[in-house]
Amino acid sequence: MIELETITKLIESLRKLPGVGIKTAERMAYQILEMKEEHINDFVLAMNNVKSRIKKCPICGSYMEDDLCPFCNDMERDSSSLVVVSYFKDALAFEKIKKYYGLYHVLNGSLSPSKGIGIADINIPSLLKRIEEGHFKEIILATDPNVEGETTALYLNKLLEKYNVTVTRLAYGLPMGAQLDYADELTLIRALEGRNKVGKD
Amino acid sequence: MIELETITKLIESLRKLPGVGIKTAERMAYQILEMKEEHINDFVLAMNNVKSRIKKCPICGSYMEDDLCPFCNDMERDSSSLVVVSYFKDALAFEKIKKYYGLYHVLNGSLSPSKGIGIADINIPSLLKRIEEGHFKEIILATDPNVEGETTALYLNKLLEKYNVTVTRLAYGLPMGAQLDYADELTLIRALEGRNKVGKD
Repeated sequence: MIELETITKLIESLRKLPGVGIKTAERMAYQILEMKEEHINDFVLAMNNVKSRIKKCPICGSYMEDDLCPFCNDMERDSSSLVVVSYFKDALAFEKIKKYYGLYHVLNGSLSPSKGIGIADINIPSLLKRIEEGHFKEIILATDPNVEGETTALYLNKLLEKYNVTVTRLAYGLPMGAQLDYADELTLIRALEGRNKVGKD
Repeated sequence: MIELETITKLIESLRKLPGVGIKTAERMAYQILEMKEEHINDFVLAMNNVKSRIKKCPICGSYMEDDLCPFCNDMERDSSSLVVVSYFKDALAFEKIKKYYGLYHVLNGSLSPSKGIGIADINIPSLLKRIEEGHFKEIILATDPNVEGETTALYLNKLLEKYNVTVTRLAYGLPMGAQLDYADELTLIRALEGRNKVGKD
């Protein structure tokens, strides 16, 4: 069997990416072989930079570049409210809507008894420390609306009862632009349960 | 808008891979951020090695490592038969079946008038030169069974008429393990046209 070791190694590395099977990895590797040298150099540089320059903020758990947290180092943010998300990219999703100007806490995961992910495995201890030391008025729980995200939110809600802060959870309901008859049952149930008075803001 | 430049650059590089859109590239980038340092190092090394060690064989067009073509440098191969394929990975597919021990010629593409890919854009001139200088008895056209592959095979067949070699094309028909009623019409037509006498080898 003919095998070019360097290509095989590249395929092995590509297979570590999410959703990349053997066939996709092969296709990617052959595409990389045909890439312009400058594009390969950019790719290698990007990988090296990410490795050397990106760290996690010791306060909020966000990724940060050159030891500057994009959130904690921003003095113009409202330090009285805190959105708790599972992943950094969820915080970016909030930033995109330009309606929230407070701080974030990135858990870097969700509680999952079935996967053995407990309180100490995600950034819950650092969250409690922040709440104890900070002056937050509102903690907005923004974990994913799935089993693990819900478990995490319920647990955090319980845990935060003893602090003098308002704890809220993002609203559930029909996504905008959806068709009612295509909504799944659970979403429809939540939309009904969470119904608001017309005219209420 | 919060943006970490190093992550953005990595996402841009990942988007150059085949079939990778913005969401997939983001997911891959965040996975790379969470990778162990040694895995990132392996990845970077693999990219660098591929760039520095892989070249194309000036004779057959295959990829080769350290200037050693896996086919042309193998003296035990039957130098009287030549399989013509569009891409290196097609030659590897032949190697996997362990039924062919001759040489290869990798065109590195297919003729495609609509994409402006002509004779000089793929390795046809070097193929003719090889046939003129070599002692091939059979040339097996093994381009893909699609429009571009067929165009290429038909054109090559015409071009090779003047040489004293047998030119053959891979058989068309039902793939093994398929169900007849699921076969597409064109395949079924080709299977009918190419029918063999029972008992014929």
